[in-house]
Amino acid sequence: MPDTPINLIAKLALISDRWSPRVIAEMNDIQFKLVKLEGDFIWHQHDETDEVFLVIKGEMQIGFRDREVTVGEGEMFVVPRGVEHITRAAEECHALIIEPRDVINTGDSGGDLTARNDLWI
Amino acid sequence: MPDTPINLIAKLALISDRWSPRVIAEMNDIQFKLVKLEGDFIWHQHDETDEVFLVIKGEMQIGFRDREVTVGEGEMFVVPRGVEHITRAAEECHALIIEPRDVINTGDSGGDLTARNDLWI
Repeated sequence: MPDTPINLIAKLALISDRWSPRVIAEMNDIQFKLVKLEGDFIWHQHDETDEVFLVIKGEMQIGFRDREVTVGEGEMFVVPRGVEHITRAAEECHALIIEPRDVINTGDSGGDLTARNDLWI
Repeated sequence: MPDTPINLIAKLALISDRWSPRVIAEMNDIQFKLVKLEGDFIWHQHDETDEVFLVIKGEMQIGFRDREVTVGEGEMFVVPRGVEHITRAAEECHALIIEPRDVINTGDSGGDLTARNDLWI
């Protein structure tokens, strides 16, 4: 067990790239991952799990086939399992993603934006 | 699926009591609970699960038998399963607790501070 807490802002300062979630903590089999978003991600879905986005700085959109939700600073949204979605941020946005350990960022879609999984900072 | 995100500050404004976590979201079997802390809780442990505290406002202490950790605004800490701990806050502190659905706030200890579980706001 560490002696100090995990500071989200200090951890975010270590991230320079976009769309590459970095793990900062685990609770049971759940990982807490910080990510910097900017631009458009890709349409994908996670069939095995819900996925939480908690915005730390800026704002992001989570697009679904029938709607789009804007998630601002201090707000969170739960993307239900099996629901196709795309994340977007017109300007740099910092978010905490909470989901099980083995979730791949691009879900079932793959492609160039697929990040290495389980990267810790 | 809701049309709007969950705003942590707006939800916190609905809570007037202390030490009574209110569920604001679920991801799989994991619950997200807001709580207002002030004063000393009780020594207890959760044998079946880790427990996350993410401080939204103010600061709290998590005491262990061999150390005490201060968790400030924008910081989080994972209390490992089976480790006895006590939470404290000299002044009002607002935190997000993340843990499985059936966790009781007083763990194995019970007593007057045991809150009703699964209370949503």
